[in-house]
Amino acid sequence: MKKFGSSEKFLFGDNIEWEVVGEGVKRKIMGYDDSIMLVNVHFDKGGIGPMHAHYHSQVTYVVSGIFELTIDKETHLLKGGDSFYIPPNVLHGAVCKESGVLIDVFSPIREDFMGEE
Amino acid sequence: MKKFGSSEKFLFGDNIEWEVVGEGVKRKIMGYDDSIMLVNVHFDKGGIGPMHAHYHSQVTYVVSGIFELTIDKETHLLKGGDSFYIPPNVLHGAVCKESGVLIDVFSPIREDFMGEE
Repeated sequence: MKKFGSSEKFLFGDNIEWEVVGEGVKRKIMGYDDSIMLVNVHFDKGGIGPMHAHYHSQVTYVVSGIFELTIDKETHLLKGGDSFYIPPNVLHGAVCKESGVLIDVFSPIREDFMGEE
Repeated sequence: MKKFGSSEKFLFGDNIEWEVVGEGVKRKIMGYDDSIMLVNVHFDKGGIGPMHAHYHSQVTYVVSGIFELTIDKETHLLKGGDSFYIPPNVLHGAVCKESGVLIDVFSPIREDFMGEE
């Protein structure tokens, strides 16, 4: 597997550019090594994370906003202070009901989020 | 290595009790499997995470508050929207300057955070 090394140790949000990843959805990669990666994802109201799956384990913390989260065949509304866990290879997706921020963390690193070097 | 399985998929913050882990510091474990663990840590002003090290990789997102963070021999003030990355076995510690919340994520799971079963 390709190795990516690691990020800086201190990451200042104001210094990191947003990357637009869909309509009403943008992200900042905010810390990683080959075994873990943290991503700040901002959703406008109506922004969608389409149903998808990946072999990485994922945990996500809802910082703010309201999200309709589907994991496998179960759907719940989550708000700031809630979180969710997605096992490897399980389908999941989100619809943003009120603008907010998710902190997505993956193990191992999401190679597909890393630009060509 | 001992296996812990995984947490629930949906975790509602209001339903999870705080665990006091030090003076002015309390936490909720909010999602895990054997390869990843997410922990919500609330600090009162003056709360301290003493300098320590562990073999796990760690990424942390600052949700709110102001924290004086030391990693190895480098110290910075971090606020909501910032983050940090701690490589395995590197000394680190935090002093809370204004009350707030850190989202600590580890890979692999912190076995030492899991109660006896």
